[in-house]
Amino acid sequence: MTTSTQLAGGSSGHEHLRPLIDTALDGFAKGTIERNGPLPARGPGADGLHSGAGGFPEGSCPETGVGSARALTEMSRWFSQHAIDPADPACAAHLHTPPLAVAVAADTVAGAVNSSLDSWDQGPSGVAIEAEVVRAMTSLIGYSPETATGAMTSGGTESNLTGLMLAREHAGRAANDAAVRGRPRILCSADAHFSVARSAGVLGLGEDAAVEVGLDSRRRMDPDSLRRALDAVDGDGDVPIAVVATAGTTDLGTIDPLAEIAAITEARGLWLHVDAAYGGGAVFSRRLAPLLDGLERADSVAIDLHKLGWQPVAAGLFCVRDATLFEPLQRRVAYLNAEDDEQAGYRSLLGRSLRTTRRADAFKVAVTLRALGRAGLGALVDRCHDLARHAASRVRGTPRLALHSDPALTTVVFRYLPRSGDPDSVNARLRRRLMDEGRAVVGRTEFAGAVQLKLTLLNPNTTEADIDALLDAVVAAGDKECA
Amino acid sequence: MTTSTQLAGGSSGHEHLRPLIDTALDGFAKGTIERNGPLPARGPGADGLHSGAGGFPEGSCPETGVGSARALTEMSRWFSQHAIDPADPACAAHLHTPPLAVAVAADTVAGAVNSSLDSWDQGPSGVAIEAEVVRAMTSLIGYSPETATGAMTSGGTESNLTGLMLAREHAGRAANDAAVRGRPRILCSADAHFSVARSAGVLGLGEDAAVEVGLDSRRRMDPDSLRRALDAVDGDGDVPIAVVATAGTTDLGTIDPLAEIAAITEARGLWLHVDAAYGGGAVFSRRLAPLLDGLERADSVAIDLHKLGWQPVAAGLFCVRDATLFEPLQRRVAYLNAEDDEQAGYRSLLGRSLRTTRRADAFKVAVTLRALGRAGLGALVDRCHDLARHAASRVRGTPRLALHSDPALTTVVFRYLPRSGDPDSVNARLRRRLMDEGRAVVGRTEFAGAVQLKLTLLNPNTTEADIDALLDAVVAAGDKECA
Repeated sequence: MTTSTQLAGGSSGHEHLRPLIDTALDGFAKGTIERNGPLPARGPGADGLHSGAGGFPEGSCPETGVGSARALTEMSRWFSQHAIDPADPACAAHLHTPPLAVAVAADTVAGAVNSSLDSWDQGPSGVAIEAEVVRAMTSLIGYSPETATGAMTSGGTESNLTGLMLAREHAGRAANDAAVRGRPRILCSADAHFSVARSAGVLGLGEDAAVEVGLDSRRRMDPDSLRRALDAVDGDGDVPIAVVATAGTTDLGTIDPLAEIAAITEARGLWLHVDAAYGGGAVFSRRLAPLLDGLERADSVAIDLHKLGWQPVAAGLFCVRDATLFEPLQRRVAYLNAEDDEQAGYRSLLGRSLRTTRRADAFKVAVTLRALGRAGLGALVDRCHDLARHAASRVRGTPRLALHSDPALTTVVFRYLPRSGDPDSVNARLRRRLMDEGRAVVGRTEFAGAVQLKLTLLNPNTTEADIDALLDAVVAAGDKECA
Repeated sequence: MTTSTQLAGGSSGHEHLRPLIDTALDGFAKGTIERNGPLPARGPGADGLHSGAGGFPEGSCPETGVGSARALTEMSRWFSQHAIDPADPACAAHLHTPPLAVAVAADTVAGAVNSSLDSWDQGPSGVAIEAEVVRAMTSLIGYSPETATGAMTSGGTESNLTGLMLAREHAGRAANDAAVRGRPRILCSADAHFSVARSAGVLGLGEDAAVEVGLDSRRRMDPDSLRRALDAVDGDGDVPIAVVATAGTTDLGTIDPLAEIAAITEARGLWLHVDAAYGGGAVFSRRLAPLLDGLERADSVAIDLHKLGWQPVAAGLFCVRDATLFEPLQRRVAYLNAEDDEQAGYRSLLGRSLRTTRRADAFKVAVTLRALGRAGLGALVDRCHDLARHAASRVRGTPRLALHSDPALTTVVFRYLPRSGDPDSVNARLRRRLMDEGRAVVGRTEFAGAVQLKLTLLNPNTTEADIDALLDAVVAAGDKECA
């Protein structure tokens, strides 16, 4: 057997994996040292980023192989040399988590075993451990463990799509008779994630089925505006099928007033989906969990554990208040879940997901929950929240910077104030300058048409001094752009 | 720093990962030895499968952690002890691949680096390597490298959904004016994957928007039946928006006559999507690639490299003939792909996927393609095809077994012929008996309402003697059920 046919599983799997993983990690380490910072300098023009891609021949599939060791060494080195490293304190643009080593190690086992959760006979332990993770997380959400359930997803976008699909089916409004009964509508705030409108598009409702609800002064969904918007939808003869509240908007981390919104949706018999892709991780923190009061009244919830959960992608989680709400996804497929097999106890999770084949992403989550506990993960959440507060205070104390608002979770939105020139253009250019110089990866977004900068702080090992240095680099880059 | 806050990335990441991965692999190895076969005995009643799940407390999130080493040791052991191992030659039920060790090693690096492909500044090398993998695969498909493109997906189900969504948009038939213009319809054979109808449901067309096209004597889509079905749809005033051909049906591996179907869809200006989730891997094989003639004429193609590509899940690939066909998925999002950033070369792959956050699954594929080359992967495909032919011949020579049909790819569908008792029940029970005894994992499906058994042969290291022993075990289990 050459290394080319060495499998990761079976009784020799671990013997095959150890030297190859060592080789891969050697390349990874080498590339990281060579990168020597949060990203390769010169941005899209970085040496070797596009040409050759670590020895991969351009434009075609290599006809013969170079062997596992050489491919792993060269390509792992190239891959990390040209990566953006969320574990670098100067990488703070996105909800792009530096994963915990324990989670990556566990995920290696999930990959080697290669369970799939769509039938019992592709992964009994995968099916069992996902159930445990779902129970653990639904208990933190505050759902009743007797009725709630859920499944891992590829992330918030899939979770939001799943929730809105169930809402659509629940409302009993197949899109093709919408013309008769009124147009299905989804209500969310202007700061809701773009995947809500995109989901409406995928679901055949049209992206413009998403109706914008007004914000309060802190950019949270305003309950009075929600009532008025629902009345207006009714008045137009349209049909509201769901309200989507956000717990942790992508930019500001704002959490909509969940309990007040739940009171409205309950009174009207409407589906409430909470997109807690970002903020859901606050369930781990005694300090921040109260911000999620009312989450337990949602019909469905999206939480991404590859955000405030420090998992490698993918670690999305979609939960429902009551298992019966999954009914529209149930399927009987002869080759996957025959009825007599299920009666004999061979149960699958096919009916919990829009996917068929599904990796046991729950395994890395389970190992992490057991290794750190709620308290351990909560400490990481609190640490990142502390870093955001420090950054906000530092921005406030820096004359050339203007804070947008106090941080809600772990993001800080602010602007560089140029002495001269168009502020939007200067902010956009200073950000690209930091990337071109290989110095820092800062986020950008827009509010009211104005370009803003953003730090998304998800690295618990970042220090206050790192934050100070990062903000100093922002100011220096801004000054250079104005020079 | 305790192990609880050790990150996988950064310059110390490899130092954190090595001992933890070693620990995880120790547990993995121990569990594999203890399982001592393709699956744990006693099926869903296996000791320790549900209670405790490797030390995970039942029903709640652990409050405090036990540390990374203990969690990894105990849970990796439990996970593999209670897994079903596709690397065991007696595990042959599903399109459930034993992954190559080189791919799992590469995937560990992808997890540690944790790139996401939805913006340039979350993974330049991830964005670049996906483009290389897509070019390599589209060249094997036979697409023009100048125009074709694609993206990795979570699997065939997501790929089929993406293809059908693009087809729906392309047809310019938003579901909400379907009532006026006629009902959108999707044509596929009765043996098409269930995700085609499910996609129609998700897309708001209704699951029954999928129209069944008749089969020829080899259960391939019959071109004359397709013409008649399209005429009937037109006659009803409905609107065909896509034809879905299958290249490798889940059970029989049947490949629809792609070139003949393409001639029909081209003549009528219809979108052709080919679900080659299983059979697409035949592009690697000189022997089998001719079966895919016509694939290059499809508008969109789904190929799962976690099937005939020996990748750990997920490694789906969705390709389109022409990059402009992705237009309906384009999005401009202030925080991800601002226009001036894209003009400066900071390009993302946001518009290539229904997902937002997206792991660099392309990295493991790229390393595998480079390590083995087309020829190396083709040899694995041919080996599994040989095993299927051997199994078919052995079934044919066994009096108590009846072959359904000659294998097309790497599956063999057959039945045990009981001396007495209901054949369906006996076949279903003998399969569960093999699982209950921890002996083998054989597939099952149904044709014409009759339960069939199935071997899905994806392990290139399986020997002819393993196949013989597996079929002997099937016969012995059947005989016991009839005794």
